Amino acid sequence: MKAALYSGNKTISVEEISPQKLGPGQVQLRVSHCGVCGTDLHIFQGHMDQRVKMPAVIGHEMSGQVASVGAGVKGVAPGDRVVVRPLDPCGNCPACQAGHSHICQNLKFIGIDSPGAFQELWNVPAFTLHKLPDSVSMERGAMIEPLAVACHDVRLGGVKKDDFIVVIGGGPIGMLIALVARQAGARVLVSEVNPHRLSLGGQLQLQTVDPRETDLPGLVENQTGKAGADVVFEVSGSAAGTEVMTKLPRTRGRIVVVAIMPQPQKVDLFRFFWRELQMLGARVYEPEDFEKAISLAGSDAFPLDKLISAVRPLDDLQKTLDSLETSTDTMKVLIKC
Amino acid sequence: MKAALYSGNKTISVEEISPQKLGPGQVQLRVSHCGVCGTDLHIFQGHMDQRVKMPAVIGHEMSGQVASVGAGVKGVAPGDRVVVRPLDPCGNCPACQAGHSHICQNLKFIGIDSPGAFQELWNVPAFTLHKLPDSVSMERGAMIEPLAVACHDVRLGGVKKDDFIVVIGGGPIGMLIALVARQAGARVLVSEVNPHRLSLGGQLQLQTVDPRETDLPGLVENQTGKAGADVVFEVSGSAAGTEVMTKLPRTRGRIVVVAIMPQPQKVDLFRFFWRELQMLGARVYEPEDFEKAISLAGSDAFPLDKLISAVRPLDDLQKTLDSLETSTDTMKVLIKC
Repeated sequence: MKAALYSGNKTISVEEISPQKLGPGQVQLRVSHCGVCGTDLHIFQGHMDQRVKMPAVIGHEMSGQVASVGAGVKGVAPGDRVVVRPLDPCGNCPACQAGHSHICQNLKFIGIDSPGAFQELWNVPAFTLHKLPDSVSMERGAMIEPLAVACHDVRLGGVKKDDFIVVIGGGPIGMLIALVARQAGARVLVSEVNPHRLSLGGQLQLQTVDPRETDLPGLVENQTGKAGADVVFEVSGSAAGTEVMTKLPRTRGRIVVVAIMPQPQKVDLFRFFWRELQMLGARVYEPEDFEKAISLAGSDAFPLDKLISAVRPLDDLQKTLDSLETSTDTMKVLIKC
Repeated sequence: MKAALYSGNKTISVEEISPQKLGPGQVQLRVSHCGVCGTDLHIFQGHMDQRVKMPAVIGHEMSGQVASVGAGVKGVAPGDRVVVRPLDPCGNCPACQAGHSHICQNLKFIGIDSPGAFQELWNVPAFTLHKLPDSVSMERGAMIEPLAVACHDVRLGGVKKDDFIVVIGGGPIGMLIALVARQAGARVLVSEVNPHRLSLGGQLQLQTVDPRETDLPGLVENQTGKAGADVVFEVSGSAAGTEVMTKLPRTRGRIVVVAIMPQPQKVDLFRFFWRELQMLGARVYEPEDFEKAISLAGSDAFPLDKLISAVRPLDDLQKTLDSLETSTDTMKVLIKC
């Protein structure tokens, strides 16, 4: 079977390898589509060479069908259409014991810490599977994982009907957060500087703003009767984003930190005190977020397809990652495996 | 009657003035004791000269008795023993309309934006009063306002029985937070660098640590079975405090920002993402926090007296503020008015 192997130094080679032996509790999947995530690009760029075991098969935003089932696996049968929640928690650490196994203190992320989905056949623990209804195409199925991230962010942010929401950063996750929040009945404003993304926001009928051209705090004040936003999502990971995020929420409003920011950022803690603001981090997803994402993806009215920039063959993975390094107009590329 | 007047340039003069005319809805109080707050020191040092109207009577941590009652005031009678919740909200802004009038967007703080309690007779709106039971002495009564701050912080922090709490900064508010959290059944650790405050923490039978001598994150890990703290209170306002605060909480643990930090601080937002941390600002108090503080102060077992460093006459206010500028071993000084 074919697999894409990352061997360091921005190099992916697609090779014929033998499928791995199926262990007890595992399921072998025939991968249909797998999206290219920002994390895959980070790995490709060598930022995570300490963590991945080369040659590495990466990828985790997938859809597929069950090919065969290992010993002891129940409730799953060959032919089932599925997606994978790629988290393998230890079960024993304080976080797991407290019921937060998705942020297990020893979490293994499948597709980073163990082989991923950019291959024809993929073995995963059965407990990671969520079934896809027929209403969700395989292309849309490959969008479930990032959509589950957005569902988690919106759920933890406590977004309610009629809330005023600001999403700082309109990349794939930011746009999905905006769509999920709108679907929950919120008024949504997306702040973004990239003209392609601003244009896509318009196509999705989202209110957008370029904060270099418009005073963002002033706009939010105007649109909320001087109250401020109920929830702000910081998805840009930029210094400008972390500077403006505290200027937007209402008294006791919330900021959700979605972006991954390796370096400490300057944050206006006075504003937290002054308005009794709340901030919370949100990471990956829990099972209910996958179920919510699958339910949303089952409706054609939810414009998931508009976020798919291209579908390419596995042989083009290297080329795709190369182009994503500099691309400014690509949202999500799916790889047909 | 005597009043202490701040006229700028670190100058306080105690003078004979006429009591102000009592308006409708107001109550005239005979001030017994008034604590010197960090804010009073800020005003004395000239940092708030733009805001205070000189010559200014400052002070807001008081206890006293009702001297007379203005037109339309009900439920209050001369002789009542009272404390003042010194907040005068507008009632109309979005924060007030949302039920958060204590952080009103046009809040007037009595004792800063209008005359305060460092005088013999003080007129305040009747709605600011809380009655003191006989079990609370006038000295302890003057501690109710800062104690209500601590009650607010602990309540917003969601501190529960058996929680592990870290208080960063053991000044008057930090120590009060530690005592309130302990009274709620939490295990408490106070991090402080000042030897006098560390020693006072010991007298209060609080666990203390000097983070320059002991690895604070390691200590918290050890004491919580590698989980981390449930709630961390940042009360130091220091760069070291805001650096360490994110290293201490458990997954989904909370940080309460109590200190007032005028300048943006470097904050490890990655840790928010990684552990799904929560942070919230807490400012002043709501009526229930005053009631809780009065209830705690009514019990001799609550060691409020140990935080009172000295009681001095009104004539010594200038001298007291002068010495607080450099003092390292003073907690709370009360002024007998």
